[in-house]
Amino acid sequence: MADKVKNLDELFVDTLKDLYDAEQQIVKALPKMIDQANSSDLKQSFKEHLDVTHRQIDRLDQIFKELKTTSKGKRCVGMEGLIKEGDEVMKEAADPMVRDAALIGAAQKVEHYEIAGYGTARAYAQALGHQNFAKMLDQTADEEGQADKKLTMIAEGHINAKAKTK
Amino acid sequence: MADKVKNLDELFVDTLKDLYDAEQQIVKALPKMIDQANSSDLKQSFKEHLDVTHRQIDRLDQIFKELKTTSKGKRCVGMEGLIKEGDEVMKEAADPMVRDAALIGAAQKVEHYEIAGYGTARAYAQALGHQNFAKMLDQTADEEGQADKKLTMIAEGHINAKAKTK
Repeated sequence: MADKVKNLDELFVDTLKDLYDAEQQIVKALPKMIDQANSSDLKQSFKEHLDVTHRQIDRLDQIFKELKTTSKGKRCVGMEGLIKEGDEVMKEAADPMVRDAALIGAAQKVEHYEIAGYGTARAYAQALGHQNFAKMLDQTADEEGQADKKLTMIAEGHINAKAKTK
Repeated sequence: MADKVKNLDELFVDTLKDLYDAEQQIVKALPKMIDQANSSDLKQSFKEHLDVTHRQIDRLDQIFKELKTTSKGKRCVGMEGLIKEGDEVMKEAADPMVRDAALIGAAQKVEHYEIAGYGTARAYAQALGHQNFAKMLDQTADEEGQADKKLTMIAEGHINAKAKTK
């Protein structure tokens, strides 16, 4: 059982810890997704996102350091469910292009978790007067938004049409 | 173990079943969130979203009917994780305004799951030439986007500031 959260400062740290654990789970899941992807543009997009994720973790590390607190102590149950769901859908897909379409759907749920989570963290940072942290968290939220849009372009560009003809 | 998904038609139905189960879980979770919410505008917003969710389920029912298939057979593991996470954060919050801030964060993760899921389903519908379904799914995605924005306004309007002073 986690400690009681008494104020927005503590809720802010709690939210950052949740995101930190989510990012760690994503770093572990992405190599499997890169391996499972069939289309080269999708594979490349996941590879780039792995690099971006490492930079996002660095940003969180910097915030924890400035707040003089630890990043440890929280398991992100939400991300756990999303990754489990992605695993299921990968196993169910009986065709490489259908698997690519399914992989994109799963990845976009992960992106949207982060868009929501970083958006919330940014709002807390602003309310607490941490303008610098708000800027950093906003940058990560923006990157997730861009990654989401890129996946939509890949899906609508060729993958969904190819999955259809199977 | 679910059946193998061989083409985009089957992936489309699979995605709709996932969303259908997600909506059922949300219908069960929302009354608890209405009960836990302290601020009247947040309570009202959750109440309105419960009505909207029923209409979104009706839309899915209509699509299943037209596709002559069942809505049953899939457990949305992703939503399960998000709701579990929301439960945890509600229990952790030791103050009503902090709980409201946390409830908004949890609800926005749920909204974003649906924005991603309905966006994916809409793209599949379009690729498959189901223009009417694409329009219906887009309407739901739009409603989720509006609900998300409204929660941001409530959080930034007064709740985060009040959670801070505790």
